[in-house]
Formats: sequence, structure tokens, C-alpha cells
Amino acid sequence: MTDDNHHSATDIVQSIREGRTTPSAVMAAHLDRIAAREAVVGAFIHLDADRAMQRARAADNRPATGALHGVPFAIKDIIDTDDMPAAWGSDSLAGRRPAGNAACVQAFLDAGAIPLGKTVTTEFAYFKPGKTANPHRLSHTPGGSSSGSAAAVADLMAPLAFGSQTAASLIRPAAYCGVAAFKPTTGAFDLSGVMALSPSLDTLGILARDPRDFVLARCVLTGTPMPAPLDFSGRLPRICLMRGPHWQDGSIEMREACRRAMAALAACGADTGEIAHPPLFADLTQAHKDVMGYEAARSRADVYDSHRPMISTQFAELIETGKRVTDTRYHAALAMRDRANAMVEVMLGDCDALLAASAPGEAPEGLGATGDPLFSRMWTLLQLPCVALPLGVGPQGLPLGIQLIGRKGDDARLLAVAAWAHDGLRDA
Amino acid sequence: MTDDNHHSATDIVQSIREGRTTPSAVMAAHLDRIAAREAVVGAFIHLDADRAMQRARAADNRPATGALHGVPFAIKDIIDTDDMPAAWGSDSLAGRRPAGNAACVQAFLDAGAIPLGKTVTTEFAYFKPGKTANPHRLSHTPGGSSSGSAAAVADLMAPLAFGSQTAASLIRPAAYCGVAAFKPTTGAFDLSGVMALSPSLDTLGILARDPRDFVLARCVLTGTPMPAPLDFSGRLPRICLMRGPHWQDGSIEMREACRRAMAALAACGADTGEIAHPPLFADLTQAHKDVMGYEAARSRADVYDSHRPMISTQFAELIETGKRVTDTRYHAALAMRDRANAMVEVMLGDCDALLAASAPGEAPEGLGATGDPLFSRMWTLLQLPCVALPLGVGPQGLPLGIQLIGRKGDDARLLAVAAWAHDGLRDA
Repeated sequence: MTDDNHHSATDIVQSIREGRTTPSAVMAAHLDRIAAREAVVGAFIHLDADRAMQRARAADNRPATGALHGVPFAIKDIIDTDDMPAAWGSDSLAGRRPAGNAACVQAFLDAGAIPLGKTVTTEFAYFKPGKTANPHRLSHTPGGSSSGSAAAVADLMAPLAFGSQTAASLIRPAAYCGVAAFKPTTGAFDLSGVMALSPSLDTLGILARDPRDFVLARCVLTGTPMPAPLDFSGRLPRICLMRGPHWQDGSIEMREACRRAMAALAACGADTGEIAHPPLFADLTQAHKDVMGYEAARSRADVYDSHRPMISTQFAELIETGKRVTDTRYHAALAMRDRANAMVEVMLGDCDALLAASAPGEAPEGLGATGDPLFSRMWTLLQLPCVALPLGVGPQGLPLGIQLIGRKGDDARLLAVAAWAHDGLRDA
Repeated sequence: MTDDNHHSATDIVQSIREGRTTPSAVMAAHLDRIAAREAVVGAFIHLDADRAMQRARAADNRPATGALHGVPFAIKDIIDTDDMPAAWGSDSLAGRRPAGNAACVQAFLDAGAIPLGKTVTTEFAYFKPGKTANPHRLSHTPGGSSSGSAAAVADLMAPLAFGSQTAASLIRPAAYCGVAAFKPTTGAFDLSGVMALSPSLDTLGILARDPRDFVLARCVLTGTPMPAPLDFSGRLPRICLMRGPHWQDGSIEMREACRRAMAALAACGADTGEIAHPPLFADLTQAHKDVMGYEAARSRADVYDSHRPMISTQFAELIETGKRVTDTRYHAALAMRDRANAMVEVMLGDCDALLAASAPGEAPEGLGATGDPLFSRMWTLLQLPCVALPLGVGPQGLPLGIQLIGRKGDDARLLAVAAWAHDGLRDA
């Protein structure tokens, strides 16, 4: 298999099983790409090429039984491993060395996947950027907070990478880097060994170029067997556009991308429609901020109180604002979330997935900020599963994307719809 | 004006103002009817004809300025007055004499209405029936718990009567007796001086033969001016059938009545449709029972603990079952209510009112029970405004009815729709 770093995890596993390539050849291709590009992209904060190669060679000599046998993967630096530092993107924690593997890392290892290294995260997965550039244009942000994971996958350095989302940290970097991302229903993937920021919102997820890889990764992470492909032959998916309360706050090209996506899906036979958001939804973005601030101020009081001078003004503002959110306001935000979720349940009706903007537009210029999480806060608050899919480029030649949103807990269906939609959107 | 006891409160007020009748003539007609029929109907538990007539004569000599000037009304016996006993339908409280008027009674008095007496309630507004018979067939129940008020209005003994609903105590007796009832949004009418059973559910309401009277009564009770009639000329109301989770538990004739009502409204130009209930709604009836039991066990612990030997097995069972509802289960029921309300908000969309069954069918035979509250528990839990409207008769020749359900707090619109629908349903 040539260009071993151009393939999806699903294809890599298949090729290794069929003897068309080997774990070490796959690893070598990815390490070569990293060697060639990492100096300008800056996706990794910790990389141990020798150890990765050593593990790949060991895999060459083992039967290809694991579901991810021989697949290289990258790990956002808020996730623990037993062999690499994990400083959560903060100088204040430089040299932090976890004792064990996060549950997700262990599950991937058990399935035969091979870690490449730790990818750059913004500080504490919030707003202060790391060194990563957007591989499509190095002067533009890759988005955050899963900046390095999105850039590594986009730049063919890894087929799969772990990321996480508390506001928009999977969906937005995926959109800016032109890759796919899967944010499952909150709580679907075990967060043991993953830095907590806001427990009601924190969600472990995956970045990949092919959404079929999400099905594979999800089975590994949840310990469930691979599902039979969903049969859409009888009735193609029903997908409805939801403009949402921030439709006018995004760029013209983002709105155009959503319309283009709907038209392309309709052309493929999807049953398309549009669902208006209830007025309450206009308040969900602020409710998300209240929940995130309130919980972050409590979850991360430890580092904040002990390392205040080394902490960015962005993160300090999150904590200080969060301290001012009253218990009453916090609980009102959670109650609003529950009401809105009940509305979603009814609104969706026979609709398989909503389609919405994934970011305000193309990746903004500059590496000093990671863009606005505006288009994901609401969905993250609602704890719904979301899949970001790339959708061509905008006027600056940088990637655009949309997201599909599914029913809470119905991640399997959403992934099937996303895989189907991805094919339809390829040429849109 | 002949047959002064055949008219609506709205018409009585108008006729008195125009000099076509007098408060004393109106009162005399109602007292004559009571004298002729009370022995067999048994609507009243306390009646002071002399005092009522005395008040009516005094009203003859006052200017007809009150919104209800000269209108006789009846008062369910769980509502306090300063001049009559209020034993809440229980032997244990025989001789209870409140010191003051309930807020609703005082508001009616201030508007010039004249109390006829106290009407029969089931014991503590729950299941143990009083003496009242269904005026349409004396061997059948009038329904409960507002038994006497529904029977009095149906039998032309009063144009208006106060009732209350904690499960189905307005809507079901209205259906069985062939009259209209208005259960406002919970909390809309002041409950001061009304027996508390379950504070999340208890709702003061009105029984009348003409739903236009509800508009008048509501203005008096809420201290708001009479609204201009809603103009439906541009767009007739949109009314959607909701079969609900208990559709198959009712009689064929009840289902037929709902269909007949929808067809009649469509024939009058209503924009009709059907809305399916979300699966969650199947659990609302049990949630209602949990809330009612839990709260009743606390609200009425006083009489239950002090008068246990004189209390019916039905009420004892409510209290004992309620004591076993855990805090967790109670709060889960309230949370389910809030989720369902959010669903209703979205489900209703552009629909002005839902149409649903008001009772399982015609009034059951026998005076030992008051029928099943099954078709109202859910709506009462949701605290939504409901109007019962009569709709012809069933195979036994006894009344059938439907109910219209509106948006929480939007009682004015529901009453306008109900008045419009009442005309359309008159010959259905």
C-alpha cells in the first residue's frame, strides 16, 4: 500500500489484515510525514518516534486481531498516558507525569492501536493557543482546543486523534482544518484520565478524515461489537437544517455552505427539511457559558489557586466569571437545558439528524486566538452527539464545514447518517 | 325575561341592565327550580333560600354596575364563606364554620353576584361520593369531585358554580352532566380559602352552560377588564386532536365524539390537524398520581391523623399510598412534568388548542363512585388551561363531551377558541 499515511484507520486495519501493508510501514509513513511537516505545523507537544516505531515493529510480529491493529493515533495533551508527560497545555504543569493511561488510551492500546505522541491543546482546553498552525495556511489558526489533533489528522500525520469538547473544541478545529470530528453524547466515552474542566459538558471525542473511523473507534471505546451497516435503502435519512439563533452572526459563506450541503443531500435522495428553533434556544449559549464557568471555577480551583501567576488572562477570566455565577443561575441554566432537550426530542420528530453550521466561517488569520465557539456551545450544553464534516472551501481557500446533530444517546444512528452524508457532500 | 333560570350569566347581567328582568326575579326562578328538583338531584349541602332572596331584593335596589350584578352562583363545599358551613364533604368536619370568605367568593360578591349555597363535593374533593345524582339520569353518577356544582348548573339551578380540580374534578363532572367547565392554568385564580389537597395540582375553576361566562368570571376573579372578542375572521383557530396515551382505554363513543367534534370544527372552517403524543406522555398519569399522593399526604395529614376513624377507605388509601412515594420519586415526577411541558410548547406550534377526550364515556351507572379521572390527570399535572364542552349524547342517551387544552398562561386565547368552538359543536 503506497501513501500509507493517506488512509483511514478503517482502511489501514483492512490492509494490514490482508497483508498489503504492515504496522511498521504504516507507522513509518506517518513518522516521515511528521518529520517533514511538524516544524511548520506544530501539532505535537510530545513525540517519541523511536518508541512508536518500536511498538509498530512489535505489532508486525503479532496476529492482526485487534480492531485497531497497527493504527497510529495521536492524543490531546489533556489525556493521560503512563509514558508521556501531560501538562494540559499549561506552563504551570510542565513536567506533569501521570502514572497511568486514560481509559480511552488503554482501550486503543488493547485494540492494537499505536500512540504517536501528545498533541497540542490550548491551555486547560480553553482559549490560550499553543504553537499549532493551520496546515492549510500556516498564518491561520487551526481552531481550539483540540488544535494539534485536528492539525495532525488534517496534515496526514495521523489517521485518528483523540480530542475533547467542552464548548466547541472538536467541531470547530475540525471545521477549520477540513477534517471530520465526532463528539458523542456527553458521557458516552469514559473520561477517566482526562482533565476535567466542566463535568456537565466535557466530552471525549475523535478526529478523523473519514467518519467511518468513528464507528470503529466508538466500538473500541464502548466495548461493543461493530454494528451492521445501517440500511438506508428503504428510506434515505431525513436531515433538517436548523439555522439556530446565531445564523446571522456567522459569515455569508457559512450560511452558503449549509444551503449547499442541504441541496447536495437532497440531490442524493435525503428527505430534507428545515426546523425552526424555539425562542428558548436563543438563551442556551449564555446558559452554556454559565454552566462552564461555574463548573470550571470549581473543577480547576486547584491549579488556579496554586499557580495563579503562570495562568493566562483568558483562563483567569473564565474562573473569575465562573465564581460570580450564583447557584441559582447555575441551576436555572441546567433546568433550561432540560427543557430545551425535551423540545429537541419533540422537534426532531422523524428527522434523523439536524444540520447546522460548525463554525462562523473559515479559520481566522493569526495564531493568537482560536476562533469563536458560538456555533457549538448550545449543542454541547444539550449533550447531543454531533459530527463535523468538511464541505469544500470558502473565499479565502480555507476549509468550511457543517455539523450533523443527532438524538441524545443515539450515536450509532448519527454515525451511520454521517457516513452516508459524507459521501454525498464530497463533491458539494 | 321568562325562564330566568335558563340563561347564561352573561345574558342575565345584560337582561338586568336592560331592565328586562331583576335580580329577585332571576333568583326566584333559580330557587323555584331548586325547590322542584333538589330532592332528587341533591346538588346542595347547604342552601339558604331566604338569605339568597333577601340579597337579590337588595340588589334590585342597587344600580347594576357590578360585572355579575344579580347573578346567582353556587359554591363547592371545599370553598369558605363567612356565612355557611364548609365541611369539605367529610363527616369528620361537620359543623366547620370558616370565619371569612374565600378570595373567589369575595370577588364574586364584590361584582354583585349572589350565592345560592354550598354544593356537594366528594369527601376532601377525592373519591368518596356525596348524595348528588346525575340530573340526566338519577341512577348515574354526576362525576366528582365538583359533583353538586356540575349537577346544579346542568339542572338549571344555577348559571355558574365554583368547582375545583386536582385530577379531573371539573372536566369529568362537566362531561357527565353535559355542561362546560373551565380549569384555568394552575395558579391563575387565588386559592385563599379553598381547601388544599395537592398544591402543585389544585386549581379553582368554574362550571357553566355557556363558555362565554368563563370570560366574564375570569375577569372578575383576576381583576382584569373584559377583553375585546378575539377576531378569528382573518384566520380561524387551528385545533388539533391529541388522542393521547389512553385513547384505547376509553369507550368507542368517546372516540367517536372526538372525531365528530373534529369534523364539525373543520366544517366550520377551523384549521384542523392531529398531533401525536410523545412516548413520555404515557408516564404522566402515574406521575400525576405520585405528585397528588405525595402532596395530599402532607397537606391533609392534619385531618387524617386527627379523624382517622371517620375517614373513607378511598381517602385513606390516597394518603397511605402518598406516604410511600419517596422524595426522589416525587421530584422525578415534577421533573418529568417540566420536560413534558417543554415538549407541549414545541408540539403546539401554530395550534391554538388541542382537542382531547374529557372522560372515558357516558356517566357510569350507580352513585357509589364518580368515574375515572384518567383523561384529565395528565393535563392537570401539566398545569394547562382546559375547557370542557358538551357534545351530544352517547348510546345510553347520556351526555358526552370533549375538552380543549391551551398553552400554559394563555387562558384568554383558550376561552376565545372555546366560545368559538362551542357554537360549531352545538349541532355536532
